Amino acid sequence: MPPGQIEILMIEDNPNDAELAMYALQKNRLANHIVVLRDGAEALDYLFDEAARERDAAADAPKLILLDLKLPKVDGIDVLRRLKSDPRTKSIPVVMLTSSREERDIVKSYQLGVNSYIVKPVDFDQFTKAVQEIGLYWLLLNEQPHPRGGG
Amino acid sequence: MPPGQIEILMIEDNPNDAELAMYALQKNRLANHIVVLRDGAEALDYLFDEAARERDAAADAPKLILLDLKLPKVDGIDVLRRLKSDPRTKSIPVVMLTSSREERDIVKSYQLGVNSYIVKPVDFDQFTKAVQEIGLYWLLLNEQPHPRGGG
Repeated sequence: MPPGQIEILMIEDNPNDAELAMYALQKNRLANHIVVLRDGAEALDYLFDEAARERDAAADAPKLILLDLKLPKVDGIDVLRRLKSDPRTKSIPVVMLTSSREERDIVKSYQLGVNSYIVKPVDFDQFTKAVQEIGLYWLLLNEQPHPRGGG
Repeated sequence: MPPGQIEILMIEDNPNDAELAMYALQKNRLANHIVVLRDGAEALDYLFDEAARERDAAADAPKLILLDLKLPKVDGIDVLRRLKSDPRTKSIPVVMLTSSREERDIVKSYQLGVNSYIVKPVDFDQFTKAVQEIGLYWLLLNEQPHPRGGG
């Protein structure tokens, strides 16, 4: 069980990208609690076991899910479909963070209800900057439901 | 007919908020083409007439819809419901920009598929800054489908 609310759940099988993203977020004090999972099956277990375990599980929902598209075991698109078709997880903002700029991936993601789709910049500095902008936007500016506050 | 692609469609009945948002976006050169509509009925006419008129209407879809919640004629929630339940408009990012931080409004918006929910800061400078961050994120960082490019 995590020691506090998970702010960002990152589902990323490339360890370099995961490490760089964590570095970028922590440098700006944007995320005290990040969990990184390496494949889609692990992500579904994590999110739905959590939801099943407690009635009030939504209170522990991450503020943001950063989801890679090409993932081992269960693809990012299938993880997205599951998250956005279940009322327990539908309100969690999901940002696709992927190297694919293929039209069919972008279209499919929006049709399944992704909140935002970001193409990973190839350049190191630009990747860091993009991750920081994502963190600023979704952790500091965006509002999502607060189940504990709402009763 | 607009002279180029509409970058931001703002649906806002408060003329002060609309003017301040336009000022903030134009100051950062974030939006060359903004259209402001004053109520929900006007917004639906605009978006669905556009969609009906041309087969390739999605090519003229705005890059971002800024949607107020409390609107005359047709409420923001109903506009959102229409946009997110029609495949022609579902992929357009919709950001609620509202003074309501009521839990039921936030929950309802996410359940209907809003991309992001931002509470308008009361302070003038903070409102300007928030609008600029929204513009930067959705116009420069986020990717959405490009129907013309995709064939």
